Formats: sequence, C-alpha cells, structure tokens
Amino acid sequence: MNMKTYINPKVEEFAEICERPIIESDELENTVKSVFREVKMNGDQALQWYTRNFDKVEISDFKIEARIIEDACRKIDEELKQAIILAKNNIEKFHASQKQGKEIITTSAGVECWQESRPIEKVGIYIPGGTAPLFSTVLMLAVPAIIAGCNEIVLCSPPDKNGDLNPAILYTAKLLGINKVYRVGGIQAIAALSYGTETIPKVYKIFGPGNQFVTAAKQFAQREGIAIDMPAGPSELLVMADETADIRFVASDLLSQAEHGNDSQVVCVSDNKGFLANLEKEVYKQLNKLPRKDFAIKAIANSKLVMLENKEAQIAFINEYAPEHFIIMTNDDEYYIRNVINAGSVFIGKYTPESAGDYASGTNHTLPTNGFAKAYSGVNLDSFTKKITFQRISSEGLLNIGPAIEIMAAAEYLDAHKNAVSIRLNRLKS
Amino acid sequence: MNMKTYINPKVEEFAEICERPIIESDELENTVKSVFREVKMNGDQALQWYTRNFDKVEISDFKIEARIIEDACRKIDEELKQAIILAKNNIEKFHASQKQGKEIITTSAGVECWQESRPIEKVGIYIPGGTAPLFSTVLMLAVPAIIAGCNEIVLCSPPDKNGDLNPAILYTAKLLGINKVYRVGGIQAIAALSYGTETIPKVYKIFGPGNQFVTAAKQFAQREGIAIDMPAGPSELLVMADETADIRFVASDLLSQAEHGNDSQVVCVSDNKGFLANLEKEVYKQLNKLPRKDFAIKAIANSKLVMLENKEAQIAFINEYAPEHFIIMTNDDEYYIRNVINAGSVFIGKYTPESAGDYASGTNHTLPTNGFAKAYSGVNLDSFTKKITFQRISSEGLLNIGPAIEIMAAAEYLDAHKNAVSIRLNRLKS
Repeated sequence: MNMKTYINPKVEEFAEICERPIIESDELENTVKSVFREVKMNGDQALQWYTRNFDKVEISDFKIEARIIEDACRKIDEELKQAIILAKNNIEKFHASQKQGKEIITTSAGVECWQESRPIEKVGIYIPGGTAPLFSTVLMLAVPAIIAGCNEIVLCSPPDKNGDLNPAILYTAKLLGINKVYRVGGIQAIAALSYGTETIPKVYKIFGPGNQFVTAAKQFAQREGIAIDMPAGPSELLVMADETADIRFVASDLLSQAEHGNDSQVVCVSDNKGFLANLEKEVYKQLNKLPRKDFAIKAIANSKLVMLENKEAQIAFINEYAPEHFIIMTNDDEYYIRNVINAGSVFIGKYTPESAGDYASGTNHTLPTNGFAKAYSGVNLDSFTKKITFQRISSEGLLNIGPAIEIMAAAEYLDAHKNAVSIRLNRLKS
Repeated sequence: MNMKTYINPKVEEFAEICERPIIESDELENTVKSVFREVKMNGDQALQWYTRNFDKVEISDFKIEARIIEDACRKIDEELKQAIILAKNNIEKFHASQKQGKEIITTSAGVECWQESRPIEKVGIYIPGGTAPLFSTVLMLAVPAIIAGCNEIVLCSPPDKNGDLNPAILYTAKLLGINKVYRVGGIQAIAALSYGTETIPKVYKIFGPGNQFVTAAKQFAQREGIAIDMPAGPSELLVMADETADIRFVASDLLSQAEHGNDSQVVCVSDNKGFLANLEKEVYKQLNKLPRKDFAIKAIANSKLVMLENKEAQIAFINEYAPEHFIIMTNDDEYYIRNVINAGSVFIGKYTPESAGDYASGTNHTLPTNGFAKAYSGVNLDSFTKKITFQRISSEGLLNIGPAIEIMAAAEYLDAHKNAVSIRLNRLKS
C-alpha cells in the first residue's frame, strides 16, 4: 500500500488534503447518556455493574490502597525509576516557568486593575489502559496540577483483567504524592468524576486522553457543566523536511507517530520530490522491524506526502493542517518557527525527535489534534488555573471614569447600572 | 415578596443555597440541530428563511455596508462617543498588559523549551439585540481580539424590526476598525459562524453572550469542533458587606445586577443581621424608582441574604457560590482578596461599583456565571490566542535525555518512539 503523494497541490485543495477521518460520536450518545444517568443515581453500584459488563472484571473497592501502591513500586526497575525522575524534573522546570506574577495596571488615575491566577480546586486525571500503559501521561497532567496548587487530584484508570493497574502508573502517582487513585475506566469513570460517588470525588475539570468512549463521555460531561482539557482525536504528526534532512530520522519520526493506532495520521511536506520518494521506501524498510507494525501499517496507509515548491505555500499548508506535532528539519528552521500559527508543539532540528516531547524534554504531550490547534492550546500550567480580575477604584478614580459609565449605561437602557455610579458620585460631590 | 434570608447556615447547607435555577436546554436541542443542518446545506438562503421566521424581518443583504455604518456614526452624541473612547482606552491598557514575552528554559543541558502565543486567526463576536443594545460588549470582545492579532473578526447581531442594528453598536465597530458586520442573530448566526455561508465567513472560535437559544447554539457549535468562550448563564453578583458598608451603595449594586433579567441572581453575605434587614428595606425603596423594575423585582425575589458570623465560613460560602461578580465592602478587604479562589471579577471598596467593570475600568465583562468560575476564567487576552510549545535539542541534549526516553518508551511498549531516539543516538556514538 502506498502513501498518498500530492505534487504542488493548489491552495484550494489544501482544505481537502488536510481533512481528518470523521469520527461519528452520535451513535455513542445514548450509551453515554444512560451510563451517566445510572452513575448519577446509583453511584458505586453502577460503577461495579459497568465495570463487570464493559471491563469483564469484578471490583468491590475502587480505591487503590496504599499497600498495593507500595507493592507496585517494588516491581519497578531502578533504571525506569531514574528515567521517570529525569522526565519529572524537566516537566516541573518547564511548567513552573509558566507561573505569572501579578502586575497592577492603572488604567485611569485612581483606577487599579490586575489579574491573579487561582488553582482549580478539584481536578480529575484520566489515564487510559489498553495496549500502552501511559504512565508518562500521569507526569504530564499531575505535575502542572501540583504546581498550580490544585488541592484535590483524582486519578482514574481502567483495571486490567485481574483488576489491577499497571505498576508504572502507580509508581508515578506515588512519586508525585497522589493518593486518590481509582481503578475505574471508560464512560463510567468520567461519569463518576462528573457527579461524584460514595468513593470517587466530584471534580470541576477532567483531563486526559482516551478512546472514543472516553472522548464522548468527556463531551457529555462538558454539557453537564464540567470543564474538560480539550476535544480529542487520534494523534498526528507533520514533518517539514527539505533535502538537508536525514531520511532515516524523518522516517523514524513518522513511524513513532504511526504506531499509536490505526487512525493516527502522519504527513511529510517537502520541496523535493526525490526526497519524498526515498522517504517512502525508508518508511517501509523501518516499518517491517517494528513490533507494533500492524498499527503502523494502517496509519501509514492514511498518511500523506506533500510536495510544495515554495516556502509560502508550505507554511500556508501547515497552518491549514494545524498539526498536533510539528517537526522542522530544514536549512531555514527560523522561517517556519516565525510563521507557524497553528500547531500544538514544535520540534526543531535533527536531534529533536517528537518522542522527546512525549516523555522528557519538559513540554506537555497533551496537545490539540484534528485541527483544534487553530483555536486551542495544549495543556499547560494555565489549564489548571483560572484568572480572576480585580479592580480597586478610589474616589478620584470614580470621579474620572464615573461620568463615562453613567452615559454608557444610560445608552444601553440600564438605569440601575447608572444609578450605582450616580449614588456614589452624588455622595462625593455633596 | 421578601428576599430569602439565611442565618448562620451550616456548611452542609452551602451547596443547596448556592444552587442556581436549572436551565433545561434539552428541548432546544432539536431546533438547534435542524437550524445548523439547514444553514450548513443552504447557507444564506437558510439565514433569510430563519430571519423571516424568527426575527420577523426580510433581509436580503446580511452584510452592513460602510455607508450605513457612516450614517449610524453621525447619529451618536459626542458625549457618548467620548465615553466609549474612554472605556476603549482603559480596556486596551489592561488587555495589552496581559501580553507575555517568550522565555527560553533549559530543562536539561542542551534541551531548550519555550512557549509562544499565536492569535486565533478567525474569531466570531456575537452581540445580542433585545432589550439592551450591548455596544459595551463590542469593546470587551473586539479590543482584546485586535491586541491578540486575530486577522479576521466577524461581528453578528440580530436585526431589529426594520432590519437595522443599533447605531451605537455600529459606531463602536467602526471605531475599532471592524468592517465585517452582519445583521443576523440567534441560532442561525451561530450556525453561520460555525460553517460559513456565501457572505458570512467561518470562524474558529465564537465569543459573546446571548439568550437560551444562542447559548444552546454555541454548545452545539462546540460539538461541531468550533471553540467557544465559555458556557453561559444568567448574570449574578455577590456582595460581601459588613456593618462598615454603606447600605445605599450595596442596595444600588444589587439592583444593578438584578435589572439584567428575571433570572439574574444577587446575594449579599454579611456578619450582621441588622445590616441585612435594613439592606432589604433599602433595596425595595430604590427598586420602585427604576424603569426596569419589572425585571428587577423578579430577580430580587430569587435572591439571597446570608448571615455568617465568622470570616472562614463567609469565604467558604463565597468560594462554593463562585460568583461571576464579587464586591467586597468590609473593614478587612485584604482577607477576602487573599482567600477568594472562585470568582469572575472582584470589585474592592466603596467606590468600585460592579458597573465600573461592565463599562470602563478596563477589566473584561465577559465572565463565568452559574458557578463556572470554579473552572473557567473570564475572557482575557489569552482567550484570543493559543500557546504553542517549542523545543530545540542539541546533540549534547539528546545524549543527556535520550536514554531516559528510550527506557520510558520501551516501558510503554512504544518501540517506534524508542527507535526515533536510538537511531539518532547510534549516529552520535558512531
């Protein structure tokens, strides 16, 4: 099966080339609604029922006891522990640097305004189970939550056939001091975090990746008034490479993204047709050696090679695609850095593979897919806080801006708004 | 009709007292779905049909021509123009101060990470029609959009019975240099911004207040992949006042919020029972003089006076309520500033009425209602941007963090992720 190749497509064709496979969530909606209703009404009992039916395992105690976490930690190799600690330190450094101080702005004489960040008090972190135990996602979501000062961090992850969670997930939770860890997954986990049950606390915002069921559940949670990190879709990567790029490196990056799942998308843009042809050969060569090649082969078949001669067309295409991950390997990286508008995270140069950002460079790996980078940021420190504005007006300040407020309020026919100023100005003038 | 008074309620009762009236949006869903489907398929023709049926006016050209805007500007009093310019200047100053520089963080030697803000390229601004022509909302949404660098700002507002928009809305748009102004409102306007039509451009994010139809339409737009500013609900105000507060000022603030609509909510928390009893009398006294007293009287009937003796209980209640607007008039304002976690915007001291923030102090008046301040910020400069993370790793950097990435990727069974690092490390070691 060949990769789709486009040679100098016209601007009018960009939108079509950039289209992702459509994920229909409508048929899921009724399932999601009924799970939410049951969990709201019956709490833990409903969680047990759905865990028995969906996950095929009987769970009586959803909370993971400290003892079980201790046991899990003993199973982790020292080498892996050290790697996780290195990643944790880098993620901490980068997210701690995102803290903002407060700056008081005098907008008119006597009128002081400022913003302050406050933590979201209760957050939920969903860690998928399935084919890959994503302990790295525990770092990516819990580290900024802790730096932000969230005082209740609730972690849910689906139990395996034996009712257990992966030891590396438990080790990472323990390392970060998270002790509210629950073995429950899928729609029922998101419902539990949305409403609370006897054992699982209700939260104000839910973070984390997941399959189509979890994604649909998070969308429903949002309609129920719970904030979510962002809409989710399959992972994707776009590489911008010219003839100076190393074909083996580019191929390895495309494959690292393709192994996530059948529906992952990878794109390479280049000004060089020969480069793209050779790249395709190298991709299939490396593909054959991969344990997860069954996933990757399907994702590669969905993927695209785009030849565009001039830089303006390349960056226009890239901004239309709005990739989750964007690797730049060219002889003029600065051009793309300066002109990229829509992307989740950008990887610059030959020694910056996308997997560095997945684990250990320090940036967050929870990023907008499916073109959502046009309007959404990836998860960052701000995702765990909200900003409150403050204003303090002196008597002088109100004399300065009060008359404008009175005039504007009257013009909007809001007399009580006007009156709240007039009653004070009258006092000041009397 | 009396205001509901609670004397020293227990902590367990807080959640119930803080409940807002439930707004059922389910019955609207089918209407919203069919309007969206029609607008997606038939574009302007569908807009005309719905405008005829919902707004009872025939519109053939949705775009407001420059000539009409010029005419409208001539109708605005010089006094109102100057008031709008004063407000614009303060809003500009405050939102421009929210710009963030880029700071490069070296997380490990040779590993550089940073964040940069980029504008959301296309944004839609919805300005409601109805009983109050909210030209102030044009300032609150368009000023930060312009500072952020959004290059397409599309303004929609419902036409009146004659097919016109309020001149003050047009004047404000003109003042800010916005020339994409369309006379279309309600569900069909949000659908047009979501999909685009022959005349109205598609946008990536939709901002602005609205009635229950607009709110339901924005929620549906979100399911269609369009970002929105925040979930909306009726406006609300909580005043924290002790016996040092001026009862006339507090009453005027409560009424300024109550006049927004029948469903507005106002709350006063105090440590002083006598103060609350006198406040209630003053509210009814001022109420009788208001032109919009029919709205205000119903909102006042929904409202609450809460006596709580100690400060810890007061702030716990306030954080549970999570008010959109929070006024502090006490002899220890700093205590509440320090301890408030959940609020949209805070107004400090006797000369800082809530209406100052609605118009001219400089802070934004698009704020989270309905308890959403627990997880959402009000609109600010960030609302019009998204943050992209960048990383640049040197060969030294990859030698430092590469082995940790290999170990973590292998532990997550993601061998192609590991391989993207190994292939580079092998090159460096060879």
